[in-house]
Amino acid sequence: MGHDEQTVRRVLDAALGEGRSALTAPEGRALCGAYGIPTAAEAVADSAEEAVALAAELGGPVALKIVSPDILHKTDAGCVLTGVRGAAQVREGYARILANAREHDADAEIDGVQVQQMLTGGHEVIVGATTDPTFGKVVAFGLGGVLVEVLRDVTFRMAPLEKFEARGMLDDIAAADVLRGARGAEVADADALAGLVQALSELVTDFPEISEFDLNPVFASAGGAVAADVRVLLDPDGTAQPHRHSRQDILHAMNRLMRPRSVAVIGASNEDGKIGNSVMRNLTAGGYGGEILPVNPKADEVLGRKAYRSVQDVPGEVDVAVFTVPAKFVPAALEECGAKGVAAAVLIPSGFAETGNAELQDEVVEIARKHGIRLLGPNIYGYYYTPHDLCATFCTPYDVRGGVALTSQSGGIGMAILGFSRTTRTGVSAIVGLGNKSDVDEDDLLTFFEQDDNTKCVAMHLEDLKDGRAFVEAARRITAKKPVVVLKAGRTALGARAAGSHTGALAGDDKVYDDILRQSGVVRAPGLNDMLEYARGLPVLPTPKGENVVIITGAGGSGVLLSDACVANGLRLMDIPSDLDEQFRHYIPPFGAAGNPIDITGGEPPSTYEDTIRLGLRDPRVHALILGYWHTIVTPPMVFAELTARVVAEAREQGIDKPVVASLAGDTEVEQAAEHLFDHGIAAFPYTTEKPVAVLGAKYRWARSAGLLG
Amino acid sequence: MGHDEQTVRRVLDAALGEGRSALTAPEGRALCGAYGIPTAAEAVADSAEEAVALAAELGGPVALKIVSPDILHKTDAGCVLTGVRGAAQVREGYARILANAREHDADAEIDGVQVQQMLTGGHEVIVGATTDPTFGKVVAFGLGGVLVEVLRDVTFRMAPLEKFEARGMLDDIAAADVLRGARGAEVADADALAGLVQALSELVTDFPEISEFDLNPVFASAGGAVAADVRVLLDPDGTAQPHRHSRQDILHAMNRLMRPRSVAVIGASNEDGKIGNSVMRNLTAGGYGGEILPVNPKADEVLGRKAYRSVQDVPGEVDVAVFTVPAKFVPAALEECGAKGVAAAVLIPSGFAETGNAELQDEVVEIARKHGIRLLGPNIYGYYYTPHDLCATFCTPYDVRGGVALTSQSGGIGMAILGFSRTTRTGVSAIVGLGNKSDVDEDDLLTFFEQDDNTKCVAMHLEDLKDGRAFVEAARRITAKKPVVVLKAGRTALGARAAGSHTGALAGDDKVYDDILRQSGVVRAPGLNDMLEYARGLPVLPTPKGENVVIITGAGGSGVLLSDACVANGLRLMDIPSDLDEQFRHYIPPFGAAGNPIDITGGEPPSTYEDTIRLGLRDPRVHALILGYWHTIVTPPMVFAELTARVVAEAREQGIDKPVVASLAGDTEVEQAAEHLFDHGIAAFPYTTEKPVAVLGAKYRWARSAGLLG
Repeated sequence: MGHDEQTVRRVLDAALGEGRSALTAPEGRALCGAYGIPTAAEAVADSAEEAVALAAELGGPVALKIVSPDILHKTDAGCVLTGVRGAAQVREGYARILANAREHDADAEIDGVQVQQMLTGGHEVIVGATTDPTFGKVVAFGLGGVLVEVLRDVTFRMAPLEKFEARGMLDDIAAADVLRGARGAEVADADALAGLVQALSELVTDFPEISEFDLNPVFASAGGAVAADVRVLLDPDGTAQPHRHSRQDILHAMNRLMRPRSVAVIGASNEDGKIGNSVMRNLTAGGYGGEILPVNPKADEVLGRKAYRSVQDVPGEVDVAVFTVPAKFVPAALEECGAKGVAAAVLIPSGFAETGNAELQDEVVEIARKHGIRLLGPNIYGYYYTPHDLCATFCTPYDVRGGVALTSQSGGIGMAILGFSRTTRTGVSAIVGLGNKSDVDEDDLLTFFEQDDNTKCVAMHLEDLKDGRAFVEAARRITAKKPVVVLKAGRTALGARAAGSHTGALAGDDKVYDDILRQSGVVRAPGLNDMLEYARGLPVLPTPKGENVVIITGAGGSGVLLSDACVANGLRLMDIPSDLDEQFRHYIPPFGAAGNPIDITGGEPPSTYEDTIRLGLRDPRVHALILGYWHTIVTPPMVFAELTARVVAEAREQGIDKPVVASLAGDTEVEQAAEHLFDHGIAAFPYTTEKPVAVLGAKYRWARSAGLLG
Repeated sequence: MGHDEQTVRRVLDAALGEGRSALTAPEGRALCGAYGIPTAAEAVADSAEEAVALAAELGGPVALKIVSPDILHKTDAGCVLTGVRGAAQVREGYARILANAREHDADAEIDGVQVQQMLTGGHEVIVGATTDPTFGKVVAFGLGGVLVEVLRDVTFRMAPLEKFEARGMLDDIAAADVLRGARGAEVADADALAGLVQALSELVTDFPEISEFDLNPVFASAGGAVAADVRVLLDPDGTAQPHRHSRQDILHAMNRLMRPRSVAVIGASNEDGKIGNSVMRNLTAGGYGGEILPVNPKADEVLGRKAYRSVQDVPGEVDVAVFTVPAKFVPAALEECGAKGVAAAVLIPSGFAETGNAELQDEVVEIARKHGIRLLGPNIYGYYYTPHDLCATFCTPYDVRGGVALTSQSGGIGMAILGFSRTTRTGVSAIVGLGNKSDVDEDDLLTFFEQDDNTKCVAMHLEDLKDGRAFVEAARRITAKKPVVVLKAGRTALGARAAGSHTGALAGDDKVYDDILRQSGVVRAPGLNDMLEYARGLPVLPTPKGENVVIITGAGGSGVLLSDACVANGLRLMDIPSDLDEQFRHYIPPFGAAGNPIDITGGEPPSTYEDTIRLGLRDPRVHALILGYWHTIVTPPMVFAELTARVVAEAREQGIDKPVVASLAGDTEVEQAAEHLFDHGIAAFPYTTEKPVAVLGAKYRWARSAGLLG
């Protein structure tokens, strides 16, 4: 896009040709120039007198730096001088730098001394790019000095960036107000700065062999953004691309996996306690409508169904083969599946990479690729797809159909998903174990769920991503339509990362994940229970149409806590217009509080709840309701639950569909009331003011990032 | 303590005598000098030539500032010049400042121009004091510039401070590493800086009429800490003290309230649905062993008990009178209680300050004070004290005795406490409603619970504190022995606060509460449900003896999430010594992971859980265990629960009492398993990896602040 790729190509080829893994400063500046990134005026002097002349030309104080491919850490080598003024100082400085360079490394190739205009004024910021093992090229932005280095106030995005995304990075640091002129500081030219960030993101994308790139500092002032120092590291292997399937291929395979017409069970067994027996029982008991095909060389029938010696003996097509045999028998059976044209193999057995046996896993992946079989697992509990009553797992069947698809990388978390779903009667479309992710991973599933009308929302537990770019691409597509919740485990797995650049050293795993997951439109859940609650609540709630949230509460104490929770979850309490305020006041006692929260006070009859909730639903300026119920004799829990469900249903019949959540404070009857409300599309929770607001907050975070709030 | 109080007294009296609410800079410096707070060298010049001479004497660049009681915002008035060098600049600057002062205010009294040594080097920090409406004198500390002003990285403590507390403030800001020399910066003399903070805390304590005090900036270097600018505001009314009872009086009254020998019910009624009927029923049905005395002028008996026309007609002593009459009848009945010598009145009715009727509440408080009656409420549900089967409330009885006392300012939250306790069978010593807190408040209750052997832990919901100092004093005493959990609602109630000083402007309600609650040793719960879970879990867990936490998990996925939760809760995962590692390895499969988390892997039999848990309990270097259970056929939930309970009980018999918490991932049977574990002293939760770690983290936070971890 108007960039001078040829210059960059030439500089890189020259450096790589010499076997170098770093560019000199002038080379780095050449790259910047080619992509329109302003750098401080400078030139290279070959003699002290040339340096004096250059300094005079630049005007003001200058910095002097050695130019040598052999001296990487110039400051440590005493080869950087700043604030050098006047001919005498420049002459003396030139000599000192050369002397220090020779002392540092007598054999260093020295290409001269760089004379650079010293930038002052504006704000020192850091802009950089690095190569993340998960997401590839990422760019970083932060304010220089203490903020980025001690407080780690830095933000990341996957490159390349659109301009608005680069602009968003400036707002995304804690100290964003500084650039906006806080405390009378200079207001930085945000447009110029965002342009610089965007240009860098394009540069490293166009030339993947650039592994790390520091612009540190960049001086961001009212007049523009200029990089004072450039540092570029190269990796000739940086151009390698991971193996990817086309979207069409993914959809074809995933549809056969998730909606199979026939399922073979490799290792089906009549023996109680065997996995091959549990899977057969669950497929049958779950009510799966397709063909169930037991494969067992030693049995004529399994659980009353004809058994086959090999999957190849099965007449007709086989979409899915569920493996319940020990790991060592998998390769041979998988070859047979290949010969048969099976679309997907579900590898329940463990004993692969997770136990150190990576060779066996590689062998299996190799066989699958050869035959075009997609693999789910190994080391998983299996999977459920409730719209087809498919229960291909050794766990117990699950049959509460609904809108959320849940996936987990870990079997233990999968069991927690199952238990939680059952006890809360969460409506589920799918539960999928991903285990070792030898093949099928989160982006395959997102691609399927995106076009699966049975799925309204996706919740995923993951510890890592095999291919972060493919995930982000799939996530961006689906989150434009449906919310995706991610529980990313291993926040603290960072440890030390070997990094040659400043940006690389700042790029801790979790911060990069956190920023880029947000960039991809997914809602990150802070913990397991939050993921489960979001999964349960999000499909129940309609999408809000605006930011005006109103709290209606019978308990003033709950109102305060609900307000706290709104702030914690980034929700905006509506400034109630005076005419609406008056209408609310009409229903509540004189000592109740209108405003927001609207405190109807504790001793009120059902009609006060009913009138105020109806008003909140009907007024088009209100976009979401948070209800705080207080258990009293006057309005018992089930009375509140029934009236609320009725009023919400009435409104829905009139085409008014706003998210409503409720916090129930009371004796144990509130548990039944909460269930009744949930069954009627109101996300309600007993004994907590936090959960209902967190669930609403998650819905809002998704709706905002999908651009649905206008 | 070696301070020159006389000088301070003289300066303050002079200023107050002139009706001033601010000190001049030289006066402020005099206060600093009297308390050993170093300030930049300076003097006041009456002429340009005197200024030149002073500047020469100080050496280096100087700052010039007007000295005038009439010009408060000197910089705005153009009356501050910095970096003034040499005789010519000083002479010119002197003239300019005088001219600007006259232009700003032609009538301003001008006492000269201050010539001040300009401090450089080290770090600019802010030290200040302000008068908080809740806690009185508080001191603030933060790093200057962006950190404190944009990121609000500032910390508060109640004055006066011990030296170690002042030292702790330096570590308590996010940017603490800067003062410790991060990024090659100068290491500040922490001792000198803490000494300065402590001296300021003593100065404002000794002279309460000092309402605000800014030392901004203070230059903190390796050589010491010197204040460059001083600003002092006065409030002649600042010396007023709230009304307080002696500890002995509190204990006497609270013991009669919480463990009464007789309870009169004012307004006792036979009529179903009346509060006077509910309270009578609950007292009776709860099994209260003392005398229940119905008072009703229109009834001869209530619920089969002889009724009295007035409390004065009751023979013998009356410890407590529970009021169930409408608000307007309270004053007269309270007078009768006074005449009778009733110790405490429990005011259930609403209709007082909370509905705007502050006069009625004031009248009631007046009557109570006159007679020495302590008041609980008004506007409350009443209170429970389970060790005496006392249920003086209109809610339903609660009889699961145990170690936690819960209190709430709001009735709604009280109902949530009751419902949660009942559904989780939380063992409770007391539940107390505080409502309007016209008299009895949190510090009275803490004073009682401190010496109440039935109470092992206290959990309080509060929206404000009437007397923050009394609370902190009581909290410090009890938290040395028992944990206190506080849910402080209204985190965001701040709004704009009119503040004349920098420190005052920084002192947002919640930040002050947060820091000072921590200073007082209480554990702040982030939300209602957390408070309830801490209340349930803390009394169950023994106190840890050290920081070494070990995770033993059957699910690798849970292990990662539990580790995340440990970091989030400030828990330290033990670095397992190699000999202990070897012992763990002895029990787990070769592909399991020792280290920490210890991943015993999913398919293991009960004996693997049993062996590894026993090992963790027996090794004296391990201080706490977090268990991650994964539901499998090999080790079903109840098998795990029973073996864990047994192994923990065995250890306790051998005198080994370590906190053990558990996260259960599995199908719904894990709920029963979690209950079994809780009943046996293991805080266990299904479908969450966060809650068990949060409860353990709360126990640790308390144990650390109580100094129990060594």
